Amino acid sequence: MRAAVLVEPGRIEMRERPVPEPAPGDVLVRVTSVGVCGSDTHYYREGRIGEFVVEAPLVLGHEAAGTIAAVGAGVPAGRVGQRVSIEPQRPDPTTDETRRGRYNLCPHMRFYATPPVDGAFCDYVTIGAEFAHPVPDTVSDDAAALCEPLSVGIAAVRKAGVTAGSRVLVTGAGPIGIVTAQVARAFGATDIVVTDLDADRRALARKFGATATLDPRTDDVSDLHVDAYIDASGAPAAVAAAMRAVRPAGTVVLVGSGAETMNLPVQLIQNRELVLTGVFRYAHTWPTAIALAATGRVDLDAMVTARFPLERAAEALESDRTPGNIKTVVRVHPGDDT
Amino acid sequence: MRAAVLVEPGRIEMRERPVPEPAPGDVLVRVTSVGVCGSDTHYYREGRIGEFVVEAPLVLGHEAAGTIAAVGAGVPAGRVGQRVSIEPQRPDPTTDETRRGRYNLCPHMRFYATPPVDGAFCDYVTIGAEFAHPVPDTVSDDAAALCEPLSVGIAAVRKAGVTAGSRVLVTGAGPIGIVTAQVARAFGATDIVVTDLDADRRALARKFGATATLDPRTDDVSDLHVDAYIDASGAPAAVAAAMRAVRPAGTVVLVGSGAETMNLPVQLIQNRELVLTGVFRYAHTWPTAIALAATGRVDLDAMVTARFPLERAAEALESDRTPGNIKTVVRVHPGDDT
Amino acid sequence: MRAAVLVEPGRIEMRERPVPEPAPGDVLVRVTSVGVCGSDTHYYREGRIGEFVVEAPLVLGHEAAGTIAAVGAGVPAGRVGQRVSIEPQRPDPTTDETRRGRYNLCPHMRFYATPPVDGAFCDYVTIGAEFAHPVPDTVSDDAAALCEPLSVGIAAVRKAGVTAGSRVLVTGAGPIGIVTAQVARAFGATDIVVTDLDADRRALARKFGATATLDPRTDDVSDLHVDAYIDASGAPAAVAAAMRAVRPAGTVVLVGSGAETMNLPVQLIQNRELVLTGVFRYAHTWPTAIALAATGRVDLDAMVTARFPLERAAEALESDRTPGNIKTVVRVHPGDDT
Amino acid sequence: MRAAVLVEPGRIEMRERPVPEPAPGDVLVRVTSVGVCGSDTHYYREGRIGEFVVEAPLVLGHEAAGTIAAVGAGVPAGRVGQRVSIEPQRPDPTTDETRRGRYNLCPHMRFYATPPVDGAFCDYVTIGAEFAHPVPDTVSDDAAALCEPLSVGIAAVRKAGVTAGSRVLVTGAGPIGIVTAQVARAFGATDIVVTDLDADRRALARKFGATATLDPRTDDVSDLHVDAYIDASGAPAAVAAAMRAVRPAGTVVLVGSGAETMNLPVQLIQNRELVLTGVFRYAHTWPTAIALAATGRVDLDAMVTARFPLERAAEALESDRTPGNIKTVVRVHPGDDT
Repeated sequence: MRAAVLVEPGRIEMRERPVPEPAPGDVLVRVTSVGVCGSDTHYYREGRIGEFVVEAPLVLGHEAAGTIAAVGAGVPAGRVGQRVSIEPQRPDPTTDETRRGRYNLCPHMRFYATPPVDGAFCDYVTIGAEFAHPVPDTVSDDAAALCEPLSVGIAAVRKAGVTAGSRVLVTGAGPIGIVTAQVARAFGATDIVVTDLDADRRALARKFGATATLDPRTDDVSDLHVDAYIDASGAPAAVAAAMRAVRPAGTVVLVGSGAETMNLPVQLIQNRELVLTGVFRYAHTWPTAIALAATGRVDLDAMVTARFPLERAAEALESDRTPGNIKTVVRVHPGDDT
Repeated sequence: MRAAVLVEPGRIEMRERPVPEPAPGDVLVRVTSVGVCGSDTHYYREGRIGEFVVEAPLVLGHEAAGTIAAVGAGVPAGRVGQRVSIEPQRPDPTTDETRRGRYNLCPHMRFYATPPVDGAFCDYVTIGAEFAHPVPDTVSDDAAALCEPLSVGIAAVRKAGVTAGSRVLVTGAGPIGIVTAQVARAFGATDIVVTDLDADRRALARKFGATATLDPRTDDVSDLHVDAYIDASGAPAAVAAAMRAVRPAGTVVLVGSGAETMNLPVQLIQNRELVLTGVFRYAHTWPTAIALAATGRVDLDAMVTARFPLERAAEALESDRTPGNIKTVVRVHPGDDT
Repeated sequence: MRAAVLVEPGRIEMRERPVPEPAPGDVLVRVTSVGVCGSDTHYYREGRIGEFVVEAPLVLGHEAAGTIAAVGAGVPAGRVGQRVSIEPQRPDPTTDETRRGRYNLCPHMRFYATPPVDGAFCDYVTIGAEFAHPVPDTVSDDAAALCEPLSVGIAAVRKAGVTAGSRVLVTGAGPIGIVTAQVARAFGATDIVVTDLDADRRALARKFGATATLDPRTDDVSDLHVDAYIDASGAPAAVAAAMRAVRPAGTVVLVGSGAETMNLPVQLIQNRELVLTGVFRYAHTWPTAIALAATGRVDLDAMVTARFPLERAAEALESDRTPGNIKTVVRVHPGDDT
Repeated sequence: MRAAVLVEPGRIEMRERPVPEPAPGDVLVRVTSVGVCGSDTHYYREGRIGEFVVEAPLVLGHEAAGTIAAVGAGVPAGRVGQRVSIEPQRPDPTTDETRRGRYNLCPHMRFYATPPVDGAFCDYVTIGAEFAHPVPDTVSDDAAALCEPLSVGIAAVRKAGVTAGSRVLVTGAGPIGIVTAQVARAFGATDIVVTDLDADRRALARKFGATATLDPRTDDVSDLHVDAYIDASGAPAAVAAAMRAVRPAGTVVLVGSGAETMNLPVQLIQNRELVLTGVFRYAHTWPTAIALAATGRVDLDAMVTARFPLERAAEALESDRTPGNIKTVVRVHPGDDT
């Protein structure tokens, strides 16, 4: 099979590899669509993210959809042919974190496109059968792939405690900020304020669910009195300022990455009894993601601004620099698009 | 001022009464719209509900909206003229239940239209300032009044733990069942099954948010595997059957009233670790109700199927027998309808 | 190896069986102590519990401790020799319930001494390595075995929301009622009222943590105003009466089994917004159980009122009829008692 | 009546003031014992804490107990003579925070000994009747006063989610750290590690519930894998280091004050999905505090290391500099000590 392999920073090569055999409990998925994530681009450019270093050729891509082509032992043969969205993680079922239902925090996790585990920029992948989530025909291949970033938004919005009538602030109108705004709306939030330095991104945010947008350089957020604040920027200054917008006993969820430490207003946290946490990937989000996509509560297809064939994966990984880009997908088998 | 007074079961008389003075902390509200609730009709016909007996002439009506006409000491004068939805309860701020935020369970509660406390079928009422909730102009007078039954739905849906992607079963497609289905949708539920014996009501339920309806006489609900089940029928047989539809660790919320006891499947509760509870009125629901009404997440105006002037309150109380009736409102000052 | 096998209702035979091989991920445990549970006795006498029918010879016993004698593939060899308390369940790691951390509700569960799965009245058993919980030397073999009923109490007390200063009511002072009272105390409850028809059992309850005991025939519980009520009797009349003791927004947890349905005061549940649920075995209780036993917060050894060797398992199963009996254990290898 | 009044930083004068009249809903309390808090000492020395500035003569002291001497309108006369522990806050019952049960976050709060509200270093004080909590005779006057710092510990331990079997880390072995360790033990925690730079304080911590103590200069806490971490030091370096001790999905509660901002390891918060919050005073803690003190689950009397009469309040406020000091109390009416 074909695989787009990162051989060194900045260089992707197409390689032929054997089609993997599905192990017991696994399924083999013929990949259709794979979203490009900022982390893919970061590995592509830098060869590492923090402690994770690409030391051997690596297949990137962890936002993937496809069709089950074969099943391993113990998996019903009837699943062959199912269109699925892939939850790209393999936790160890025996660790304490996994057993408690927090499998995303499993210390033995193997995750797609995280060295040394290969991802999905290739013809076929395998995954545990319970992590290959069937999607109805109303969910396109691209939308099925983008259930992954949607899951990040769901994980964040859940931790933020967003519910019907909530007032929510999101800092950063990149792909995660936009999907988070959509998710907040789907959870019933009625005030969704998104901030971004870039006017085009603010306009996009309004298109995707923001009820208001602000420019943090000129607008003061501290009077917003929101129930929940979700950072999708990773910018320490944005976080410190935005926390002043949160009502007493409100929540702060840090999604944006980059900073190892931040200077946070702890007296504010104490005086208002704010609850601050972060998300690390997601757990138990796919059924919700698929339900929201299938019922039109979120619109993933409209977020796709560029498509590339597998052979042009490198261009796909560079496309974040294209003006107006939200989300790029690699179409691995363009002939059978849904 | 005019007041429609229940003087004995089945007999409403118009009486002149003095306009009340707002006590310190209270506001005086000129009433516009008042919804008719099944409990009003029950008091009207029977003169009692359980231990609450109408022993003196009583003004019915507790689903009320209006305009602030005067304020008591300590309330900002600027509130005069505000259009408000009335939360018709007066808890005692010093009881343990109220202090813990569960003011609906306050043992010293005084509640509109519950003997001996008068309700809102009259020109003016008073209420604590913090229980007179401002509504924006996008919320009509009728919708402002119906924030009360909407609050029942919100209380139920919250206790049921409904969130984005939830599968919900509602038994009973009366006004509360219908508003509950709407609320479930607003909280993000993507599967909302409503059962009712009556085909017309099932059709109404589909109009108001049900994604499927079932006839409990012919359809088996036990395979639904819902996350949450909310009863709005009060029918013991319906409840016992519907509980089989709930997935392990799912929730059951009893809203429908009537039965003092029910024969419940406790082994099922144990084997599935179901969580069963009930709602008694509501607390902290109005801001959410108004936000949902104002943003169109729920449609209260479409639930109004009949309007009567104050002088015809008795007819309004009888209108539940009109085929197709969902919700009747009394328009106290029809000249200033919004 | 020796196994005490239930061959038909009322008849246990000693059989020779091969020592099992630990499968990958399993450990082989040389059994030391096994508690006798009411369910063991019920299978012994009746040959069934509800839908679970003993259709082939069955080894009873699911409250077990021992020493790891061998490990399967993938389990650290260093675990051989560890003294362990056995959590006697084998959930399927791929089901939704297990993945969400509610493995006790796994529909594919295989549980010790539940037909057709053999239990622990024998020399050796196997179990998943993560379900063989190491115990420190301060926990005796008997106490290690009784971490199983202790886990039932922990599961109940957790669901009841018991915490420091809680007022708790327990109906039934059998082994589960007594262990539940101990657990409630360990969770910080400061008022623990236990009811039982039997004066001797009430005296035992006081010894094990009850701050007061009542005779339900003569004492009225309805003024207790407890935060949490846990039933360990399974008696419908006891439950209906005791629910009146619960404060508004309090909890009711049904542990006692026997009744398929109960006539419950649903109006009370509604008017007080009580939260009622049940427990089905336990999940994530063992670390807590061992910590409580090891630090003396609960006293399991004092609950052991009779000990039998494996060959006298039938007598052990009958010992619930001995006056003063709380908990009987079968000592499988009496020579190496700890 | 006598009042020890702070007239300028570092100067306390005894003044005669009229005995206050209890307003409707209030009680008049004849003060017995008042604990000295670090915030009292801080006001005494600096004349301010952050934005709260002593601009007029102020009575300090907010950890107070006494006996009800008179009641205001609406309060049962039978309460006269009751020994009470005073919860020194007066929230506004109409604010959103108070109505939701989070009255400690009420924006209109009037709190003892916080300018311009007088505290309890005087003969008589008034407080809302529901904030004067009766204590049984098993609770001494000093212990009744120290239910206030105990409440801080309870608030922290609750937010930390400590329960039976929890592993807890506390940084700082001052009075709050010590009471927090005691509370953690009362909530069922079985591993309680306390760190402090001072060996004497570490020894005290072990006396009061710590199962282990560490010196942060020489001991590494990062392997502790605790469920909950509570800071009682206010030291940024201590917090940043101690957060590494928390297991995935564990909690961090900041109690210690002083720093307006801290440089926190947000990547750690994200990767482990830690939940960080703070406490601002307390709500709904007094019944628990009294139950724990009355049943001996915490020992407040043993924390009292110095007692002064009212006239020597200034010495009391300076006594934090005495070696071995934990908690000083002012005995206002030494003649009637309990």
